[in-house]
Amino acid sequence: MSDITEYLLNHSDSTVVKVRFNDTDAMGIVHFMNYMMYFDDGFVSFMNSLGTSRKVEELIHQKIALGVKHVEVSYEGSARFGDYILVETTLEELGSKSMKFRHKLYRESDKTLLADVKAVRFVMDLNTKSLMNVKEFFSNFVEI
Amino acid sequence: MSDITEYLLNHSDSTVVKVRFNDTDAMGIVHFMNYMMYFDDGFVSFMNSLGTSRKVEELIHQKIALGVKHVEVSYEGSARFGDYILVETTLEELGSKSMKFRHKLYRESDKTLLADVKAVRFVMDLNTKSLMNVKEFFSNFVEI
Amino acid sequence: MSDITEYLLNHSDSTVVKVRFNDTDAMGIVHFMNYMMYFDDGFVSFMNSLGTSRKVEELIHQKIALGVKHVEVSYEGSARFGDYILVETTLEELGSKSMKFRHKLYRESDKTLLADVKAVRFVMDLNTKSLMNVKEFFSNFVEI
Amino acid sequence: MSDITEYLLNHSDSTVVKVRFNDTDAMGIVHFMNYMMYFDDGFVSFMNSLGTSRKVEELIHQKIALGVKHVEVSYEGSARFGDYILVETTLEELGSKSMKFRHKLYRESDKTLLADVKAVRFVMDLNTKSLMNVKEFFSNFVEI
Repeated sequence: MSDITEYLLNHSDSTVVKVRFNDTDAMGIVHFMNYMMYFDDGFVSFMNSLGTSRKVEELIHQKIALGVKHVEVSYEGSARFGDYILVETTLEELGSKSMKFRHKLYRESDKTLLADVKAVRFVMDLNTKSLMNVKEFFSNFVEI
Repeated sequence: MSDITEYLLNHSDSTVVKVRFNDTDAMGIVHFMNYMMYFDDGFVSFMNSLGTSRKVEELIHQKIALGVKHVEVSYEGSARFGDYILVETTLEELGSKSMKFRHKLYRESDKTLLADVKAVRFVMDLNTKSLMNVKEFFSNFVEI
Repeated sequence: MSDITEYLLNHSDSTVVKVRFNDTDAMGIVHFMNYMMYFDDGFVSFMNSLGTSRKVEELIHQKIALGVKHVEVSYEGSARFGDYILVETTLEELGSKSMKFRHKLYRESDKTLLADVKAVRFVMDLNTKSLMNVKEFFSNFVEI
Repeated sequence: MSDITEYLLNHSDSTVVKVRFNDTDAMGIVHFMNYMMYFDDGFVSFMNSLGTSRKVEELIHQKIALGVKHVEVSYEGSARFGDYILVETTLEELGSKSMKFRHKLYRESDKTLLADVKAVRFVMDLNTKSLMNVKEFFSNFVEI
């Protein structure tokens, strides 16, 4: 296992997201769709917590997209307006053309698990519309 | 008043939009933000109801954007999950660089007025980042 | 297998959803999150296509919620502004406390598969906060 | 002018909101609808910055709703993914049944004005479905 792979698989990040009123639905709780917004915040935070001077937000302007190929969400609890969601993110697998993120979403106040997410992402060069090698991408993105 | 201006100011369109569960919030009614989604549907429907073989959805791919400069919404009622919203759209003013749309949103079942919207839009050439003359834009877009 | 179970497992529904401009993101395509909105439309349409005089939209007012427990989405293609999404829905499994829906989302114009969704749902009595027996729920909901 | 009125009209709050990728649209900028989400964050932050031990997020559970009656947005600039939005909020008018908030939204990095918002809100007792006197509401909500 290369240094960069080892570094990435051992890295973890946590970030906190606040629930908005319009994230809720008529059941009084956060609509199931909106957890995808929260774990995407976890992904952004994970990427920017790597040792890098670049920001993941800039990649789209460099015609690089980190798309989602597959996502699996287990709903374990429900969040309400005013809750803060703790998103813990790790990278579980790093293939050549895809990588698998794991996001655990907790209510921050009492650490109740709300959702457990597995998300497979790829890196695409929007100029050529071709998949980039994930490890090569990280070798350029991360400075270790 | 040119023929095209007269045609546009006398034109009206109505379309129907269905309220989704995730459009509602914990008050059990549609969140105020989501009415902007509904009147935007009215705008799209109005544009495509003009005598034209082009579709407003294609303009973005032709690097033409019909942006919103100013919007004013009066909330008069509230919609719920399962309601159908009737959006009635007219063009009230046509300037050289902007145009003012009026959208009235009703609950379709009982014709209760839910929201009254005034939206000022402009036409931008995304290649040159400059405003297009609105009447010239319509002369090309509409075939009358 | 009871009549109602057989009826439900053999039933299928298709509905069409239009992509809004605000469903897209800066990549120019529909954001991955929004496919959850589209398959939820498929769920609502499936439920209302069953032989019933009640509407699934009314259940929330009767304190019955059809929540999502688990969802899995495979992204196979990408949709753009103006596309119509064809959502084909079947019920693949019917347990006592949960049921598994399958939604296939296609671009209507060329039948390209965009997303393949498996969604596990439960029925909750919001008065007692307890899970309802799914088959009992359907025995009351469907009139066959 | 009563003490509470004077206090409220002289109070100001600023908060910072991060733009999500799914807030953008195919023009590459934040969709005009999403500014309503940002100024609503400003409203929540303003309310919680008042001298109070209660949180505005709890009011909905106490069957009190602070609804929006009228909103007016002038779009002055455009935000992108990764931008931080500074929302500056003041209360400009305090009537008996409504109040007028002013929200100025800036890109935090360069202080470019993005949107100027006037939002009229009311306070509703959801138990009786009647409007509450705004000053009475604040006399209970704020502890000065």
